[in-house]
Amino acid sequence: MSEDATPEPGTVYLVGSGPGDPELLTLKAKRLLEEADFVLHDKLPGPKIIELLPDDRRQDVGKRAHGNRTPQWEINERLVELSREGKRVVRLKGGDSFVFGRGGEEAAYLAEHGVPFEVVPAVTSAVAAPGVAGIPVTHRDHASSVSFVTGHEDPTKPESTVNWEALAETGGTIVVLMGVTRLPQYAQALIDGGLSPETPVALVERATWPGQQIATGTLETIVDVRDEVGIEPPAITVIGGVAGTRESVVDFLRNDYSQSGEGVSND
Amino acid sequence: MSEDATPEPGTVYLVGSGPGDPELLTLKAKRLLEEADFVLHDKLPGPKIIELLPDDRRQDVGKRAHGNRTPQWEINERLVELSREGKRVVRLKGGDSFVFGRGGEEAAYLAEHGVPFEVVPAVTSAVAAPGVAGIPVTHRDHASSVSFVTGHEDPTKPESTVNWEALAETGGTIVVLMGVTRLPQYAQALIDGGLSPETPVALVERATWPGQQIATGTLETIVDVRDEVGIEPPAITVIGGVAGTRESVVDFLRNDYSQSGEGVSND
Repeated sequence: MSEDATPEPGTVYLVGSGPGDPELLTLKAKRLLEEADFVLHDKLPGPKIIELLPDDRRQDVGKRAHGNRTPQWEINERLVELSREGKRVVRLKGGDSFVFGRGGEEAAYLAEHGVPFEVVPAVTSAVAAPGVAGIPVTHRDHASSVSFVTGHEDPTKPESTVNWEALAETGGTIVVLMGVTRLPQYAQALIDGGLSPETPVALVERATWPGQQIATGTLETIVDVRDEVGIEPPAITVIGGVAGTRESVVDFLRNDYSQSGEGVSND
Repeated sequence: MSEDATPEPGTVYLVGSGPGDPELLTLKAKRLLEEADFVLHDKLPGPKIIELLPDDRRQDVGKRAHGNRTPQWEINERLVELSREGKRVVRLKGGDSFVFGRGGEEAAYLAEHGVPFEVVPAVTSAVAAPGVAGIPVTHRDHASSVSFVTGHEDPTKPESTVNWEALAETGGTIVVLMGVTRLPQYAQALIDGGLSPETPVALVERATWPGQQIATGTLETIVDVRDEVGIEPPAITVIGGVAGTRESVVDFLRNDYSQSGEGVSND
Protein backbone atom coordinates (compact mmCIF):
# COMPACT_ATOMS: atom_id res chain seq x y z
CA MET A 1 0.00 0.00 0.00
CA SER A 2 1.16 3.46 -0.79
CA GLU A 3 0.61 4.61 2.79
CA ASP A 4 3.55 2.57 4.04
CA ALA A 5 6.03 3.48 1.31
CA THR A 6 8.87 5.91 1.93
CA PRO A 7 9.74 8.15 -1.01
CA GLU A 8 12.21 6.62 -3.43
CA PRO A 9 15.49 8.33 -4.34
CA GLY A 10 15.38 9.58 -7.93
CA THR A 11 11.58 9.60 -8.02
CA VAL A 12 9.54 12.71 -8.76
CA TYR A 13 6.24 13.12 -6.88
CA LEU A 14 3.70 15.25 -8.74
CA VAL A 15 1.79 16.55 -5.72
CA GLY A 16 -1.20 18.88 -5.56
CA SER A 17 -1.46 21.15 -2.54
CA GLY A 18 -5.23 21.60 -2.61
CA PRO A 19 -6.86 25.04 -2.62
CA GLY A 20 -4.64 26.69 0.00
CA ASP A 21 -5.81 25.84 3.53
CA PRO A 22 -2.92 23.74 4.91
CA GLU A 23 -5.48 21.42 6.52
CA LEU A 24 -6.76 20.54 3.06
CA LEU A 25 -3.42 18.96 2.18
CA THR A 26 -3.73 15.19 2.00
CA LEU A 27 -1.89 13.09 4.57
CA LYS A 28 0.27 11.83 1.73
CA ALA A 29 1.17 15.32 0.48
CA LYS A 30 2.16 16.35 4.00
CA ARG A 31 4.33 13.27 4.48
CA LEU A 32 6.06 13.67 1.13
CA LEU A 33 6.74 17.37 1.78
CA GLU A 34 8.36 16.41 5.09
CA GLU A 35 10.42 13.58 3.61
CA ALA A 36 11.42 15.12 0.27
CA ASP A 37 14.99 16.16 -0.44
CA PHE A 38 13.76 18.99 -2.63
CA VAL A 39 10.50 20.79 -3.41
CA LEU A 40 9.83 22.75 -6.63
CA HIS A 41 6.78 24.96 -6.27
CA ASP A 42 5.15 28.10 -7.63
CA LYS A 43 2.84 30.68 -6.01
CA LEU A 44 -0.49 28.86 -6.40
CA PRO A 45 -0.25 26.65 -3.28
CA GLY A 46 -0.81 29.92 -1.41
CA PRO A 47 0.99 31.73 1.41
CA LYS A 48 -0.06 29.43 4.27
CA ILE A 49 1.34 26.30 2.59
CA ILE A 50 4.48 27.89 1.15
CA GLU A 51 5.48 29.13 4.61
CA LEU A 52 5.50 25.50 5.78
CA LEU A 53 8.20 24.53 3.25
CA PRO A 54 11.81 24.42 4.48
CA ASP A 55 13.77 27.28 2.88
CA ASP A 56 16.91 25.22 2.26
CA ARG A 57 15.11 22.48 0.35
CA ARG A 58 12.74 24.44 -1.87
CA GLN A 59 12.87 26.43 -5.10
CA ASP A 60 10.15 28.84 -6.23
CA VAL A 61 9.85 28.29 -9.97
CA GLY A 62 6.87 30.61 -10.21
CA LYS A 63 9.05 33.69 -10.39
CA ARG A 64 12.57 34.55 -11.42
CA ALA A 65 14.72 37.60 -12.04
CA HIS A 66 13.11 40.47 -13.98
CA GLY A 67 9.61 39.29 -12.99
CA ASN A 68 9.40 36.57 -15.66
CA ARG A 69 8.04 33.14 -15.00
CA THR A 70 10.28 30.13 -15.24
CA PRO A 71 9.37 28.53 -18.57
CA GLN A 72 7.89 25.03 -18.48
CA TRP A 73 10.87 23.46 -20.29
CA GLU A 74 13.22 24.76 -17.60
CA ILE A 75 11.05 23.24 -14.84
CA ASN A 76 10.96 19.94 -16.75
CA GLU A 77 14.76 19.91 -17.08
CA ARG A 78 15.25 20.80 -13.41
CA LEU A 79 13.03 17.85 -12.37
CA VAL A 80 15.12 15.45 -14.46
CA GLU A 81 18.36 16.94 -13.11
CA LEU A 82 17.25 16.58 -9.46
CA SER A 83 16.13 13.02 -10.13
CA ARG A 84 19.52 12.15 -11.64
CA GLU A 85 21.18 13.49 -8.48
CA GLY A 86 19.23 10.80 -6.63
CA LYS A 87 16.95 13.28 -4.92
CA ARG A 88 13.44 12.48 -3.74
CA VAL A 89 11.69 15.36 -5.45
CA VAL A 90 8.26 16.87 -4.85
CA ARG A 91 6.80 19.03 -7.62
CA LEU A 92 4.13 20.95 -5.72
CA LYS A 93 1.28 22.65 -7.59
CA GLY A 94 -1.79 24.51 -6.35
CA GLY A 95 -5.02 22.50 -6.49
CA ASP A 96 -4.55 19.18 -8.32
CA SER A 97 -1.58 18.80 -10.70
CA PHE A 98 -3.72 17.12 -13.34
CA VAL A 99 -6.50 19.75 -13.45
CA PHE A 100 -5.13 22.67 -15.50
CA GLY A 101 -1.82 22.16 -13.72
CA ARG A 102 0.36 21.01 -16.64
CA GLY A 103 1.10 17.86 -14.64
CA GLY A 104 0.43 15.79 -17.76
CA GLU A 105 3.20 17.58 -19.61
CA GLU A 106 5.61 17.07 -16.73
CA ALA A 107 4.71 13.37 -16.50
CA ALA A 108 5.30 12.93 -20.24
CA TYR A 109 8.68 14.67 -20.06
CA LEU A 110 9.77 12.59 -17.07
CA ALA A 111 8.75 9.32 -18.75
CA GLU A 112 10.54 10.35 -21.96
CA HIS A 113 13.71 10.84 -19.91
CA GLY A 114 13.36 7.61 -17.98
CA VAL A 115 12.50 9.25 -14.65
CA PRO A 116 10.10 7.34 -12.37
CA PHE A 117 7.25 9.44 -11.05
CA GLU A 118 4.15 9.18 -8.93
CA VAL A 119 0.94 11.20 -9.09
CA VAL A 120 -0.51 12.35 -5.76
CA PRO A 121 -4.08 13.56 -6.36
CA ALA A 122 -5.32 16.55 -4.41
CA VAL A 123 -8.37 18.61 -3.58
CA THR A 124 -9.02 20.60 -6.75
CA SER A 125 -9.94 24.25 -6.26
CA ALA A 126 -12.64 23.76 -8.91
CA VAL A 127 -14.61 21.71 -6.37
CA ALA A 128 -13.32 23.21 -3.12
CA ALA A 129 -13.98 26.88 -3.92
CA PRO A 130 -17.68 26.31 -4.62
CA GLY A 131 -17.81 23.86 -1.68
CA VAL A 132 -16.61 26.24 1.00
CA ALA A 133 -19.06 28.79 -0.41
CA GLY A 134 -21.85 26.27 0.28
CA ILE A 135 -22.33 25.46 -3.42
CA PRO A 136 -22.45 21.82 -4.58
CA VAL A 137 -21.21 21.54 -8.18
CA THR A 138 -23.87 18.90 -8.87
CA HIS A 139 -27.39 18.65 -7.45
CA ARG A 140 -30.39 16.47 -8.31
CA ASP A 141 -32.60 19.51 -8.86
CA HIS A 142 -30.07 21.71 -10.68
CA ALA A 143 -27.22 19.96 -12.46
CA SER A 144 -26.51 16.40 -13.54
CA SER A 145 -23.07 17.30 -14.88
CA VAL A 146 -20.29 19.78 -14.14
CA SER A 147 -17.64 21.13 -16.51
CA PHE A 148 -14.33 22.76 -15.59
CA VAL A 149 -12.73 25.18 -18.01
CA THR A 150 -10.18 27.98 -17.82
CA GLY A 151 -11.03 31.59 -18.51
CA HIS A 152 -7.56 32.41 -19.83
CA GLU A 153 -8.58 32.54 -23.45
CA ASP A 154 -10.57 35.30 -25.09
CA PRO A 155 -13.77 33.56 -26.27
CA THR A 156 -14.29 36.17 -29.00
CA LYS A 157 -11.09 35.10 -30.76
CA PRO A 158 -11.45 32.52 -33.51
CA GLU A 159 -8.56 30.43 -32.16
CA SER A 160 -10.34 29.89 -28.81
CA THR A 161 -10.34 26.15 -28.10
CA VAL A 162 -13.18 26.35 -25.59
CA ASN A 163 -16.64 25.64 -26.99
CA TRP A 164 -18.77 27.88 -24.74
CA GLU A 165 -21.90 27.12 -26.74
CA ALA A 166 -21.54 23.39 -26.15
CA LEU A 167 -20.80 24.02 -22.46
CA ALA A 168 -24.00 26.08 -22.23
CA GLU A 169 -25.94 23.28 -23.94
CA THR A 170 -24.82 20.61 -21.45
CA GLY A 171 -27.27 22.16 -18.97
CA GLY A 172 -24.78 21.37 -16.21
CA THR A 173 -22.77 23.55 -13.84
CA ILE A 174 -19.82 25.41 -15.39
CA VAL A 175 -16.81 26.21 -13.20
CA VAL A 176 -14.31 28.63 -14.70
CA LEU A 177 -10.81 28.65 -13.23
CA MET A 178 -8.56 31.70 -13.59
CA GLY A 179 -11.49 33.49 -15.13
CA VAL A 180 -12.14 36.75 -13.34
CA THR A 181 -10.48 38.99 -15.92
CA ARG A 182 -12.31 37.62 -18.98
CA LEU A 183 -15.63 37.35 -17.12
CA PRO A 184 -17.44 39.87 -19.39
CA GLN A 185 -16.48 37.93 -22.54
CA TYR A 186 -17.51 34.45 -21.45
CA ALA A 187 -20.61 35.59 -19.55
CA GLN A 188 -21.76 37.01 -22.89
CA ALA A 189 -20.62 33.90 -24.79
CA LEU A 190 -22.74 31.74 -22.48
CA ILE A 191 -25.80 33.99 -22.93
CA ASP A 192 -25.22 33.83 -26.69
CA GLY A 193 -24.98 30.05 -26.30
CA GLY A 194 -28.47 29.90 -24.85
CA LEU A 195 -28.13 30.31 -21.08
CA SER A 196 -30.64 32.65 -19.46
CA PRO A 197 -29.22 36.04 -18.35
CA GLU A 198 -30.88 35.17 -14.99
CA THR A 199 -28.60 32.14 -14.51
CA PRO A 200 -27.06 32.37 -11.00
CA VAL A 201 -23.30 33.01 -10.80
CA ALA A 202 -20.93 32.99 -7.83
CA LEU A 203 -17.37 34.28 -7.62
CA VAL A 204 -14.97 32.88 -5.02
CA GLU A 205 -11.69 34.75 -4.63
CA ARG A 206 -8.73 33.18 -2.79
CA ALA A 207 -10.78 30.16 -1.74
CA THR A 208 -9.63 28.88 1.68
CA TRP A 209 -6.81 31.49 1.73
CA PRO A 210 -6.69 34.30 4.25
CA GLY A 211 -9.06 36.97 3.00
CA GLN A 212 -11.37 34.73 0.98
CA GLN A 213 -14.18 36.72 -0.67
CA ILE A 214 -17.46 35.50 -2.15
CA ALA A 215 -19.87 37.45 -4.34
CA THR A 216 -23.02 36.35 -6.15
CA GLY A 217 -25.19 37.59 -9.01
CA THR A 218 -26.47 36.44 -12.38
CA LEU A 219 -24.88 36.17 -15.83
CA GLU A 220 -26.32 39.64 -16.47
CA THR A 221 -25.21 41.32 -13.23
CA ILE A 222 -22.02 39.51 -12.26
CA VAL A 223 -19.58 41.85 -14.01
CA ASP A 224 -20.95 44.80 -12.04
CA VAL A 225 -20.91 42.73 -8.85
CA ARG A 226 -17.28 41.78 -9.50
CA ASP A 227 -16.33 45.44 -9.84
CA GLU A 228 -18.35 46.64 -6.85
CA VAL A 229 -17.05 43.97 -4.48
CA GLY A 230 -13.56 44.16 -5.94
CA ILE A 231 -13.07 40.48 -6.77
CA GLU A 232 -9.56 39.92 -8.13
CA PRO A 233 -7.46 36.95 -9.26
CA PRO A 234 -7.04 34.23 -8.17
CA ALA A 235 -10.77 33.57 -8.32
CA ILE A 236 -13.17 30.89 -9.53
CA THR A 237 -16.53 31.44 -11.22
CA VAL A 238 -19.46 29.05 -10.67
CA ILE A 239 -22.28 29.28 -13.21
CA GLY A 240 -25.61 27.47 -12.96
CA GLY A 241 -28.61 26.83 -10.75
CA VAL A 242 -26.37 25.45 -7.99
CA ALA A 243 -24.86 28.92 -7.47
CA GLY A 244 -28.33 30.09 -6.43
CA THR A 245 -28.54 27.53 -3.61
CA ARG A 246 -25.93 29.36 -1.51
CA GLU A 247 -28.45 31.96 -0.39
CA SER A 248 -30.68 29.42 1.34
CA VAL A 249 -27.85 27.83 3.37
CA VAL A 250 -25.37 30.63 4.04
CA ASP A 251 -26.79 31.60 7.47
CA PHE A 252 -25.90 28.15 8.79
CA LEU A 253 -22.67 27.64 6.84
CA ARG A 254 -19.69 27.68 9.21
CA ASN A 255 -16.88 27.72 6.60
CA ASP A 256 -15.45 31.10 7.34
CA TYR A 257 -12.07 31.88 5.90
CA SER A 258 -12.77 35.59 5.57
CA GLN A 259 -12.03 36.15 9.28
CA SER A 260 -8.45 35.07 8.78
CA GLY A 261 -7.42 37.93 6.54
CA GLU A 262 -8.10 41.45 5.40
CA GLY A 263 -10.83 40.69 2.88
CA VAL A 264 -14.47 41.54 3.38
CA SER A 265 -16.90 38.74 2.68
CA ASN A 266 -19.94 39.68 0.67
CA ASP A 267 -22.39 37.52 2.63
CA MET B 1 -8.19 29.81 10.61
CA SER B 2 -10.01 26.57 10.31
CA GLU B 3 -6.87 24.58 11.15
CA ASP B 4 -6.94 25.66 14.76
CA ALA B 5 -10.66 25.21 15.39
CA THR B 6 -12.00 22.28 17.38
CA PRO B 7 -15.31 20.86 16.18
CA GLU B 8 -18.36 22.57 17.63
CA PRO B 9 -21.07 20.65 19.51
CA GLY B 10 -24.25 20.49 17.46
CA THR B 11 -22.43 21.12 14.18
CA VAL B 12 -22.54 18.71 11.23
CA TYR B 13 -19.36 18.35 9.16
CA LEU B 14 -20.02 17.26 5.58
CA VAL B 15 -16.71 15.51 4.94
CA GLY B 16 -15.45 13.75 1.82
CA SER B 17 -13.13 10.79 2.32
CA GLY B 18 -11.37 11.02 -1.05
CA PRO B 19 -11.13 8.03 -3.39
CA GLY B 20 -10.30 5.36 -0.80
CA ASP B 21 -6.57 5.38 0.01
CA PRO B 22 -6.50 6.50 3.67
CA GLU B 23 -3.45 8.67 2.87
CA LEU B 24 -5.62 10.67 0.48
CA LEU B 25 -7.78 11.87 3.37
CA THR B 26 -7.16 15.54 4.08
CA LEU B 27 -5.56 16.50 7.38
CA LYS B 28 -8.86 18.12 8.30
CA ALA B 29 -10.93 15.03 7.53
CA LYS B 30 -8.61 12.92 9.67
CA ARG B 31 -8.78 15.36 12.58
CA LEU B 32 -12.56 15.62 12.43
CA LEU B 33 -12.96 11.83 12.27
CA GLU B 34 -10.80 11.55 15.39
CA GLU B 35 -12.62 14.30 17.27
CA ALA B 36 -16.21 13.62 16.20
CA ASP B 37 -18.78 12.24 18.63
CA PHE B 38 -20.48 10.37 15.82
CA VAL B 39 -19.82 9.43 12.18
CA LEU B 40 -22.54 8.60 9.64
CA HIS B 41 -21.07 6.88 6.57
CA ASP B 42 -21.93 4.56 3.72
CA LYS B 43 -19.83 2.05 1.76
CA LEU B 44 -18.18 4.43 -0.73
CA PRO B 45 -15.29 5.61 1.48
CA GLY B 46 -13.96 2.08 0.92
CA PRO B 47 -12.75 -0.72 3.20
CA LYS B 48 -9.42 0.84 4.22
CA ILE B 49 -11.03 4.02 5.54
CA ILE B 50 -14.09 2.41 7.11
CA GLU B 51 -11.87 0.11 9.17
CA LEU B 52 -10.28 3.21 10.74
CA LEU B 53 -13.62 4.38 12.17
CA PRO B 54 -14.36 3.54 15.82
CA ASP B 55 -17.19 0.98 15.96
CA ASP B 56 -18.94 2.59 18.93
CA ARG B 57 -19.18 6.02 17.31
CA ARG B 58 -20.23 5.17 13.76
CA GLN B 59 -23.35 4.17 11.88
CA ASP B 60 -23.36 2.65 8.39
CA VAL B 61 -26.29 4.28 6.62
CA GLY B 62 -25.39 2.63 3.33
CA LYS B 63 -27.18 -0.57 4.27
CA ARG B 64 -29.98 -1.66 6.58
CA ALA B 65 -32.07 -4.72 7.32
CA HIS B 66 -33.37 -6.66 4.28
CA GLY B 67 -30.61 -5.26 2.07
CA ASN B 68 -32.30 -1.91 1.43
CA ARG B 69 -30.47 1.39 1.51
CA THR B 70 -31.31 3.95 4.14
CA PRO B 71 -33.42 6.53 2.31
CA GLN B 72 -32.01 10.06 2.07
CA TRP B 73 -34.79 11.57 4.21
CA GLU B 74 -33.89 9.21 7.05
CA ILE B 75 -30.21 10.22 6.86
CA ASN B 76 -31.23 13.89 6.86
CA GLU B 77 -33.40 13.39 9.96
CA ARG B 78 -30.69 11.44 11.75
CA LEU B 79 -28.20 14.29 11.16
CA VAL B 80 -30.63 16.81 12.67
CA GLU B 81 -31.35 14.50 15.61
CA LEU B 82 -27.65 13.99 16.40
CA SER B 83 -27.05 17.73 16.16
CA ARG B 84 -29.91 18.42 18.61
CA GLU B 85 -28.28 16.01 21.05
CA GLY B 86 -25.28 18.35 20.97
CA LYS B 87 -23.10 15.89 19.10
CA ARG B 88 -20.19 16.90 16.87
CA VAL B 89 -21.25 14.93 13.81
CA VAL B 90 -19.26 13.90 10.74
CA ARG B 91 -21.26 12.89 7.66
CA LEU B 92 -18.60 10.98 5.69
CA LYS B 93 -19.04 10.36 1.96
CA GLY B 94 -16.77 8.74 -0.61
CA GLY B 95 -14.91 11.22 -2.85
CA ASP B 96 -16.17 14.78 -2.35
CA SER B 97 -19.62 15.31 -0.78
CA PHE B 98 -20.50 18.00 -3.32
CA VAL B 99 -19.64 15.99 -6.47
CA PHE B 100 -22.55 13.59 -7.04
CA GLY B 101 -22.63 13.03 -3.28
CA ARG B 102 -26.01 14.58 -2.41
CA GLY B 103 -24.16 16.88 -0.01
CA GLY B 104 -26.13 19.82 -1.40
CA GLU B 105 -29.39 18.20 -0.37
CA GLU B 106 -28.05 17.47 3.11
CA ALA B 107 -26.80 21.05 3.48
CA ALA B 108 -30.19 22.42 2.43
CA TYR B 109 -32.03 20.17 4.91
CA LEU B 110 -29.68 21.14 7.75
CA ALA B 111 -30.07 24.86 7.05
CA GLU B 112 -33.87 24.49 6.86
CA HIS B 113 -33.80 22.93 10.32
CA GLY B 114 -31.46 25.51 11.81
CA VAL B 115 -28.47 23.16 12.10
CA PRO B 116 -25.02 24.73 11.60
CA PHE B 117 -22.81 22.82 9.18
CA GLU B 118 -19.39 22.98 7.58
CA VAL B 119 -18.27 21.65 4.20
CA VAL B 120 -14.90 19.88 4.13
CA PRO B 121 -13.82 19.48 0.49
CA ALA B 122 -12.02 16.30 -0.52
CA VAL B 123 -10.13 14.63 -3.33
CA THR B 124 -12.81 13.74 -5.85
CA SER B 125 -12.55 10.29 -7.43
CA ALA B 126 -13.37 11.94 -10.77
CA VAL B 127 -9.88 13.49 -10.74
CA ALA B 128 -8.01 10.94 -8.60
CA ALA B 129 -8.97 7.81 -10.55
CA PRO B 130 -7.61 9.15 -13.85
CA GLY B 131 -4.65 10.67 -11.97
CA VAL B 132 -3.36 7.47 -10.41
CA ALA B 133 -3.75 5.85 -13.84
CA GLY B 134 -1.35 8.51 -15.20
CA ILE B 135 -4.11 10.38 -17.03
CA PRO B 136 -4.45 14.17 -16.63
CA VAL B 137 -8.07 15.24 -17.10
CA THR B 138 -6.89 18.37 -18.93
CA HIS B 139 -3.89 18.77 -21.23
CA ARG B 140 -2.76 21.58 -23.55
CA ASP B 141 -2.61 19.22 -26.50
CA HIS B 142 -5.78 17.23 -25.81
CA ALA B 143 -8.44 18.91 -23.69
CA SER B 144 -9.11 22.47 -22.57
CA SER B 145 -12.13 21.42 -20.51
CA VAL B 146 -13.31 18.41 -18.51
CA SER B 147 -16.87 17.37 -17.70
CA PHE B 148 -18.02 15.03 -14.93
CA VAL B 149 -21.27 13.15 -15.33
CA THR B 150 -22.86 10.03 -13.86
CA GLY B 151 -23.61 6.94 -15.90
CA HIS B 152 -26.60 5.97 -13.77
CA GLU B 153 -29.19 7.03 -16.29
CA ASP B 154 -30.02 5.20 -19.49
CA PRO B 155 -29.14 7.70 -22.24
CA THR B 156 -31.63 6.08 -24.64
CA LYS B 157 -34.55 7.04 -22.41
CA PRO B 158 -36.29 10.31 -23.24
CA GLU B 159 -36.26 11.45 -19.60
CA SER B 160 -32.44 11.32 -19.43
CA THR B 161 -31.21 14.65 -18.06
CA VAL B 162 -27.68 14.23 -19.42
CA ASN B 163 -27.02 15.86 -22.79
CA TRP B 164 -24.40 13.46 -24.22
CA GLU B 165 -24.41 15.25 -27.56
CA ALA B 166 -23.46 18.56 -25.94
CA LEU B 167 -20.81 16.81 -23.84
CA ALA B 168 -19.35 15.32 -27.04
CA GLU B 169 -19.38 18.76 -28.67
CA THR B 170 -17.39 20.42 -25.86
CA GLY B 171 -14.31 18.67 -27.25
CA GLY B 172 -13.07 18.21 -23.70
CA THR B 173 -12.43 15.18 -21.53
CA ILE B 174 -15.53 13.36 -20.24
CA VAL B 175 -15.31 11.50 -16.93
CA VAL B 176 -18.24 9.21 -16.15
CA LEU B 177 -18.75 8.20 -12.53
CA MET B 178 -20.68 5.05 -11.64
CA GLY B 179 -20.83 4.27 -15.32
CA VAL B 180 -19.50 0.78 -15.97
CA THR B 181 -22.92 -0.88 -16.36
CA ARG B 182 -24.36 1.59 -18.89
CA LEU B 183 -21.07 1.86 -20.80
CA PRO B 184 -22.51 0.40 -24.06
CA GLN B 185 -25.32 2.97 -24.11
CA TYR B 186 -23.31 6.12 -23.52
CA ALA B 187 -20.33 5.02 -25.63
CA GLN B 188 -22.83 4.80 -28.49
CA ALA B 189 -24.50 8.08 -27.49
CA LEU B 190 -21.12 9.83 -27.67
CA ILE B 191 -20.34 8.33 -31.10
CA ASP B 192 -23.80 9.43 -32.24
CA GLY B 193 -22.97 12.86 -30.79
CA GLY B 194 -19.97 13.17 -33.08
CA LEU B 195 -17.00 11.67 -31.21
CA SER B 196 -14.74 9.43 -33.27
CA PRO B 197 -15.05 5.69 -32.54
CA GLU B 198 -11.23 5.84 -32.18
CA THR B 199 -11.47 8.20 -29.18
CA PRO B 200 -9.33 6.74 -26.37
CA VAL B 201 -11.13 5.46 -23.26
CA ALA B 202 -9.79 4.25 -19.91
CA LEU B 203 -11.61 2.39 -17.16
CA VAL B 204 -10.38 2.59 -13.57
CA GLU B 205 -12.00 0.17 -11.13
CA ARG B 206 -11.69 0.67 -7.36
CA ALA B 207 -9.26 3.57 -7.77
CA THR B 208 -6.72 3.64 -4.90
CA TRP B 209 -8.52 0.70 -3.23
CA PRO B 210 -6.91 -2.70 -2.77
CA GLY B 211 -7.21 -4.50 -6.09
CA GLN B 212 -7.39 -1.43 -8.34
CA GLN B 213 -7.70 -2.38 -12.02
CA ILE B 214 -7.13 -0.29 -15.13
CA ALA B 215 -8.10 -1.11 -18.72
CA THR B 216 -7.87 0.95 -21.89
CA GLY B 217 -9.42 0.94 -25.35
CA THR B 218 -11.45 3.19 -27.63
CA LEU B 219 -15.12 4.13 -27.75
CA GLU B 220 -15.52 1.28 -30.23
CA THR B 221 -13.60 -1.41 -28.32
CA ILE B 222 -14.09 -0.49 -24.66
CA VAL B 223 -17.19 -2.62 -24.03
CA ASP B 224 -15.30 -5.75 -25.15
CA VAL B 225 -12.26 -4.68 -23.10
CA ARG B 226 -14.48 -4.20 -20.04
CA ASP B 227 -15.87 -7.71 -20.40
CA GLU B 228 -12.50 -9.35 -21.12
CA VAL B 229 -10.69 -7.70 -18.20
CA GLY B 230 -13.73 -8.04 -15.94
CA ILE B 231 -14.07 -4.42 -14.86
CA GLU B 232 -16.90 -4.08 -12.33
CA PRO B 233 -18.41 -1.29 -10.24
CA PRO B 234 -17.25 0.90 -8.63
CA ALA B 235 -15.39 2.18 -11.68
CA ILE B 236 -14.78 5.43 -13.50
CA THR B 237 -14.63 5.95 -17.26
CA VAL B 238 -12.30 8.54 -18.83
CA ILE B 239 -13.08 9.49 -22.43
CA GLY B 240 -10.90 11.67 -24.65
CA GLY B 241 -7.41 12.16 -26.04
CA VAL B 242 -5.96 12.33 -22.50
CA ALA B 243 -6.85 8.66 -21.96
CA GLY B 244 -4.41 7.83 -24.77
CA THR B 245 -1.50 9.50 -22.97
CA ARG B 246 -1.34 6.76 -20.31
CA GLU B 247 0.44 4.40 -22.68
CA SER B 248 3.46 6.68 -23.08
CA VAL B 249 4.02 7.16 -19.33
CA VAL B 250 2.89 3.91 -17.72
CA ASP B 251 6.34 2.27 -17.66
CA PHE B 252 7.59 5.03 -15.35
CA LEU B 253 4.39 5.52 -13.33
CA ARG B 254 4.91 4.32 -9.76
CA ASN B 255 1.28 4.53 -8.56
CA ASP B 256 0.62 0.88 -7.95
CA TYR B 257 -2.42 0.01 -5.93
CA SER B 258 -2.96 -3.28 -7.72
CA GLN B 259 -0.28 -4.96 -5.58
CA SER B 260 -2.33 -4.40 -2.47
CA GLY B 261 -5.22 -6.67 -3.40
CA GLU B 262 -6.43 -9.55 -5.47
CA GLY B 263 -7.08 -7.67 -8.71
CA VAL B 264 -4.94 -8.04 -11.80
CA SER B 265 -3.82 -4.79 -13.38
CA ASN B 266 -4.16 -4.60 -17.11
CA ASP B 267 -0.91 -2.71 -17.69
